[in-house]
Amino acid sequence: MRARDLAVEFPTVTLDSPALEAAKLLAEQDLPGLIIVDDDSRPLSILPGTQVLRLAVPPYCQDDPALARVVDEAHADLFLRRLGGKTVRQCLPEQSRELPVADRKATVLELAALMARTRSPLAAVVDGDGRLVGAVTLQSLMDHALEL
Amino acid sequence: MRARDLAVEFPTVTLDSPALEAAKLLAEQDLPGLIIVDDDSRPLSILPGTQVLRLAVPPYCQDDPALARVVDEAHADLFLRRLGGKTVRQCLPEQSRELPVADRKATVLELAALMARTRSPLAAVVDGDGRLVGAVTLQSLMDHALEL
Repeated sequence: MRARDLAVEFPTVTLDSPALEAAKLLAEQDLPGLIIVDDDSRPLSILPGTQVLRLAVPPYCQDDPALARVVDEAHADLFLRRLGGKTVRQCLPEQSRELPVADRKATVLELAALMARTRSPLAAVVDGDGRLVGAVTLQSLMDHALEL
Repeated sequence: MRARDLAVEFPTVTLDSPALEAAKLLAEQDLPGLIIVDDDSRPLSILPGTQVLRLAVPPYCQDDPALARVVDEAHADLFLRRLGGKTVRQCLPEQSRELPVADRKATVLELAALMARTRSPLAAVVDGDGRLVGAVTLQSLMDHALEL
């Protein structure tokens, strides 16, 4: 089994997509993450769901639990409003690390190692030109590996 | 809204659970991760799904894509067999980092910051004695924040 056999169509967003729409896409379709592509369908970034949260959590709260605690309950509930009016480009965290992008010929083990290493429950699968052909989720990888 | 309001019952495993059973639990119930508890229901570890992969991917493949590539397709498909006969304790990766464990009174923003910081799509919620009372998933947090 190769990445091309496991890959399924997956919704994408662009840098100009509204950040709130991107968050809604993730939540409404129960996606494990988001794939951000350029105009040529090349993955620019893959954001695991937990990192989509980073788009919305104020930077001063991200690394200091004590600072998140001082925001009262009513305002804490509304933290995603911070995305309102912004694009994905404006919210995207810096990313210099390896992206979970695999070649069509990657094996199940390569996909598993890639997801473990990048901590991403989602890997983009690209063709020889780097264009997105689909995505493999951790769930579908596990289902295959366990023959469910 | 507080962690105690969002927390739902969540299956747990122990250090003595068979590792393969733990992987199956994750896959069959579509869980975002696993909560490992001690005999007093205190969370010892929380493994995001991607880190459950770490239990099975041979260490030499984890950090070097080239080494994962040399394993042939037929053997790559069977990588989870490596878990056979082992317990969770024998497979557990070293973890000195912060665990995604929240107090019952944590707000939605605290939970979001915790999940973003620990890169875990799952947070354990504990009582004053550190005993598990439930779990909050990224999905349910997003649904609440977006009022879905």
